[in-house]
Amino acid sequence: MSLPATSRAIVQTGPRSLELRELPLPSSIGPEEGLLRVEACGICGSDYEQYQGLMPNLPFPLIPGHEPVGTIAEIGEVAAQRWGVRAGDRVAVEALLPCGFCRQCRGGEYRLCSGRKGLSGYGYLSIETPPGLWGGYAEYLYLDPHTVLHPISRDVSPELATLFNPLGAGIRWAQQVPGTKLGDTIVILGPGQRGLCSVIAAREAGASCIIVSGLSVDERKLALAREFGAHHTIDVEREDIVQRVREITDGAMADIVVDVSAISNEPVIQAIDVARRGGTVVLAGMKGRRPVENFYNDRVVAKELTIKGVFGVDFHAYEPAIRLIESGKYPLEKMHTHTIALEEAEHALQLLAREIPGEEAIHIALVPG
Amino acid sequence: MSLPATSRAIVQTGPRSLELRELPLPSSIGPEEGLLRVEACGICGSDYEQYQGLMPNLPFPLIPGHEPVGTIAEIGEVAAQRWGVRAGDRVAVEALLPCGFCRQCRGGEYRLCSGRKGLSGYGYLSIETPPGLWGGYAEYLYLDPHTVLHPISRDVSPELATLFNPLGAGIRWAQQVPGTKLGDTIVILGPGQRGLCSVIAAREAGASCIIVSGLSVDERKLALAREFGAHHTIDVEREDIVQRVREITDGAMADIVVDVSAISNEPVIQAIDVARRGGTVVLAGMKGRRPVENFYNDRVVAKELTIKGVFGVDFHAYEPAIRLIESGKYPLEKMHTHTIALEEAEHALQLLAREIPGEEAIHIALVPG
Amino acid sequence: MSLPATSRAIVQTGPRSLELRELPLPSSIGPEEGLLRVEACGICGSDYEQYQGLMPNLPFPLIPGHEPVGTIAEIGEVAAQRWGVRAGDRVAVEALLPCGFCRQCRGGEYRLCSGRKGLSGYGYLSIETPPGLWGGYAEYLYLDPHTVLHPISRDVSPELATLFNPLGAGIRWAQQVPGTKLGDTIVILGPGQRGLCSVIAAREAGASCIIVSGLSVDERKLALAREFGAHHTIDVEREDIVQRVREITDGAMADIVVDVSAISNEPVIQAIDVARRGGTVVLAGMKGRRPVENFYNDRVVAKELTIKGVFGVDFHAYEPAIRLIESGKYPLEKMHTHTIALEEAEHALQLLAREIPGEEAIHIALVPG
Amino acid sequence: MSLPATSRAIVQTGPRSLELRELPLPSSIGPEEGLLRVEACGICGSDYEQYQGLMPNLPFPLIPGHEPVGTIAEIGEVAAQRWGVRAGDRVAVEALLPCGFCRQCRGGEYRLCSGRKGLSGYGYLSIETPPGLWGGYAEYLYLDPHTVLHPISRDVSPELATLFNPLGAGIRWAQQVPGTKLGDTIVILGPGQRGLCSVIAAREAGASCIIVSGLSVDERKLALAREFGAHHTIDVEREDIVQRVREITDGAMADIVVDVSAISNEPVIQAIDVARRGGTVVLAGMKGRRPVENFYNDRVVAKELTIKGVFGVDFHAYEPAIRLIESGKYPLEKMHTHTIALEEAEHALQLLAREIPGEEAIHIALVPG
Repeated sequence: MSLPATSRAIVQTGPRSLELRELPLPSSIGPEEGLLRVEACGICGSDYEQYQGLMPNLPFPLIPGHEPVGTIAEIGEVAAQRWGVRAGDRVAVEALLPCGFCRQCRGGEYRLCSGRKGLSGYGYLSIETPPGLWGGYAEYLYLDPHTVLHPISRDVSPELATLFNPLGAGIRWAQQVPGTKLGDTIVILGPGQRGLCSVIAAREAGASCIIVSGLSVDERKLALAREFGAHHTIDVEREDIVQRVREITDGAMADIVVDVSAISNEPVIQAIDVARRGGTVVLAGMKGRRPVENFYNDRVVAKELTIKGVFGVDFHAYEPAIRLIESGKYPLEKMHTHTIALEEAEHALQLLAREIPGEEAIHIALVPG
Repeated sequence: MSLPATSRAIVQTGPRSLELRELPLPSSIGPEEGLLRVEACGICGSDYEQYQGLMPNLPFPLIPGHEPVGTIAEIGEVAAQRWGVRAGDRVAVEALLPCGFCRQCRGGEYRLCSGRKGLSGYGYLSIETPPGLWGGYAEYLYLDPHTVLHPISRDVSPELATLFNPLGAGIRWAQQVPGTKLGDTIVILGPGQRGLCSVIAAREAGASCIIVSGLSVDERKLALAREFGAHHTIDVEREDIVQRVREITDGAMADIVVDVSAISNEPVIQAIDVARRGGTVVLAGMKGRRPVENFYNDRVVAKELTIKGVFGVDFHAYEPAIRLIESGKYPLEKMHTHTIALEEAEHALQLLAREIPGEEAIHIALVPG
Repeated sequence: MSLPATSRAIVQTGPRSLELRELPLPSSIGPEEGLLRVEACGICGSDYEQYQGLMPNLPFPLIPGHEPVGTIAEIGEVAAQRWGVRAGDRVAVEALLPCGFCRQCRGGEYRLCSGRKGLSGYGYLSIETPPGLWGGYAEYLYLDPHTVLHPISRDVSPELATLFNPLGAGIRWAQQVPGTKLGDTIVILGPGQRGLCSVIAAREAGASCIIVSGLSVDERKLALAREFGAHHTIDVEREDIVQRVREITDGAMADIVVDVSAISNEPVIQAIDVARRGGTVVLAGMKGRRPVENFYNDRVVAKELTIKGVFGVDFHAYEPAIRLIESGKYPLEKMHTHTIALEEAEHALQLLAREIPGEEAIHIALVPG
Repeated sequence: MSLPATSRAIVQTGPRSLELRELPLPSSIGPEEGLLRVEACGICGSDYEQYQGLMPNLPFPLIPGHEPVGTIAEIGEVAAQRWGVRAGDRVAVEALLPCGFCRQCRGGEYRLCSGRKGLSGYGYLSIETPPGLWGGYAEYLYLDPHTVLHPISRDVSPELATLFNPLGAGIRWAQQVPGTKLGDTIVILGPGQRGLCSVIAAREAGASCIIVSGLSVDERKLALAREFGAHHTIDVEREDIVQRVREITDGAMADIVVDVSAISNEPVIQAIDVARRGGTVVLAGMKGRRPVENFYNDRVVAKELTIKGVFGVDFHAYEPAIRLIESGKYPLEKMHTHTIALEEAEHALQLLAREIPGEEAIHIALVPG
């Protein structure tokens, strides 16, 4: 495969400021490195936060994009052996670049790697850090020696393949961390892409009662939640979620509650209220650094609740996510609402965040022309 | 042993209202029942809450006292076999009277028994519920068929024997629930009887760095914490606890944090701040039903913390607590500051709550004359 | 509902000796007791062992049958409240009668109850122990105060309802004990009723690769395993199971292996061989008390295997089993091969054990006429 | 520090064939590498196995020694940052050289690293693999980029420092893997260095009853076990271990059993017999690849035992082991019986294996002259 000299890329130069550029490909690929021809890059809520400039210490200019899927265009000998892939293979790339040497990496917690500083991972490095192509909003992505990647079948479309990211999150947050198992009752707060993927994870794990809540504006997403396996959905603007969960569970309340909603802190309190005594609450949504009101320590104590904050995802979850996508078991295409050309990245971000009147998106993937 | 016809008992008739009465002993003891001659009854913070009338639905008039130790005066045949004891044996009695049939009891969570309603246990039942002698502030205690009790050696003084209760709490909250193990760093917020017992539990579990915090007024308790095995103590009024824990741990912060402080919500936030990424926070203190200020969901998420509320204690913790008391390994007598006559119950309660100027108590036991 | 004075029952008087008798119903039902009109009673491998007299200390004469499903004919007031059922309700009854007071019962391990001696449970008590009706091979079953039972919908046929027992076993042994989760590879050794139920449990738990092994004579059962969700089946008489598992898993081997085969010890060695390094082996089959040949300690050490023996089942597994049966999600009727009249109990037992030439059974239920 | 051109080293050329050689130091140390001046190297049972040539695929000629402690003589810039040490620091070096990229390394199981083949670690690589100095029986040890090492205080003697290895094993095998906790009863089969270290680990973990078994010839070791904290010791040649454990535990038997004995398979059966129902057995001893006789599957099933094979150790255990050595809490010098000059390596090995009549060793360290 002969490679071009440059790659088109969307470069973010500051808050809400994106531009299309042509950047040079790495002059050479060392034995421990690789180069990915990007086929698609998924977009999630944190892409929009980054676009808004709400994350701390973003090293502009940079190429966003931390959910890339593509084809290995070039690969060094050592990397090929380590990663178990070769040129031409289709892979999904994890966002993180773990150091491999720190206490967390050694202990299997590379999500919490302390050997690399700040947000060090794809989508968060300056184009001035050689070789520059560190983001998925581009035709080509440099593959650093610390990359963690996973083969994914070519039978899946590139757009659906990028769902490895939210589905991995659903699997870790709604199954692995809380230990959801056969027969459990689970409440999922928030019906966005991570909420829907949590429904799938919970159903796969054998949960016998899956309840999803959302706002009135989420009507379509809640319908999709039911299609993916939710037994009940609750519009929290029209119904009292605590009372509804009590009715549905005949007073037993939820074994597990997962909050994947963004911004609003109310679901944190709802989570505590709908969990059963001895139940588990997973907090996975970021709330823009505002404090939670009405958080009562005594309620957590008296109910003997377990509350677990979760941030990242790792291969333990990405691997079953990829196998599940490949299986075709769920109509994931219904969750993937938009495939948008790389050049339209800004539109895509605004669309995801409901900035575009009259149009609603759940999952969006950017594809290079 | 010939029994008297009546038992002296302290009866609470309302908030801050106690009186000494003579109540009849049960006319007969059935095959599944027993009668305890109380040797001592421990007092803890919740006794004071009860005295103040701050607990909901207290069925006055009642005999308080949920930490009794005594001698079996009479016992039915079935009870003797079930409990594995006979008349004359010294035992420690658990406060709870689990139904044995509900989902929680069947599942080993009798702490959360839902088969009996309200605060059903020793110290919380009306004297009008036959046979009346339901509390440890008395010479005799009725032993209901649902009683959970544990033999305890006569080589221990009755007062020290009542420490089975706070030491059981320390073992469950500071070791079992968080899984404290060899080499861990643990921070214990609050140096009262449960905090001191948590120090002992953490030391027994092999924690290699035990840090205890308190107020300036807790100076004596903090000194005792060091004597029991704490490596460092922090006066939070004079020092910044977060900075001190950072210094002590060389930036690693705490694997486990246990909040056993009462009333103040600040330790909840301190707990979140001094825990390491991926660490565990145990919430064991009740805060008078006021909301926690400055609880940031995003911090729990970004640090991937696990927060566990804990309320009760069960035999898994009481048994090793009793063995530890019997071993004489720790100078527990230094924690037991006061033995007070039954008649002086009101004084004892006020003393524990610092209502008596110039005197300080850590652990108090009431003893019938 | 007016009750007859007597109940027909199959009484076992010794090894391979059964007779039909008429036994009196209890003269009265106390407040903590009940009476069940048996609708069906499942039969499993241990029924045959009992029939052969191979279990120790069987207190003949007795009524066998430990997997009964029926309708509450009469119930005391206390029992109704404890068990949450009333006369006319359909229930599945657990075999065990846990004491509720021993260390194991208190700790949630009532499967290992030490408060009652020997095989104390339905199907294993002498008819001379009042009130005599202790077994499921009868029209009526006495419900002791220690009974653990579960409501089950009348929309399910009685025969399928008795599958709560093997399906509960599948859920505990193939999911709960080994912690089988989304994406796991599991090998199930033995395609009998418990093996097939293990397939269902593993599939419900999200296992992405389920492999079942059997003998050539098990062809039909292996086909059914595939229908229930097994991805691969292995005839161990024609194929090398270790090599096949290596091929199927691309060298990764199995995360979890469950041995539910009876008598033969070879599957124990196969389990150790097909498990991956760090994998888990569940031993659930009884082997007639013969030692395992070629058990190499060094292999268990070098592979860092976890081996777990499992014996009983409890409500944690029976409850989701019943919900799954009620859901109608699996064609369980294909596993239930025979419904046989109570009078033909001996034939049923011989049929299950392949004593009847030319006929094969998987699951059999006895029904009173 | 100026370095010599060569290092003395003990080179094994075949079974029972050792010779002293002078080998060149690496010509240069790259940025990711280092060089250790060995201060002492511990010897354990597997050193003797290696000496006998009983391990498969030993790539002779090689320098044995996988428990080295020493001073960083030279270190590259990247390595210094990764490992958090600099020239002049005293460190303990783990035997394994994990690849950092395979599934096991990523998942925190670097003990089971599959990215490097065979016994790839210090003490097991040919001197023909550059730069040759791969073993601890030498004055200098090359530090490969994949090295895992830990700072250890200079206040500890080099010989005692090498106890990080068996003490790490004791902590992982007797505490971490079985989850030994406050109040547990533990039986340790075998009083060698790993057995004695298991006693220390169990005591640190708060086990309230520690029982150690050995042969009559182990009298001195058993006495030392009691000194380190064992409550009871059993000479299995004079006493029936099952009956003794029953007596000591008043019939409750052991929560946890750890077999650290070598060669004999009998302790495997003893472990199964002295474990309580629902207990855990850790198998840590290698038995020369002979099958276990009288291993009854049915006993493991009926007792619902958990059996765990354990092979290696990792930083989770080495770190608390080093902290414990530094604390000086235990008189470890009583376990360290011999410090022997590098040149006398062969004598040391024979001494450890009781080949030298009239002399007994527990722990031996080799020190370069």
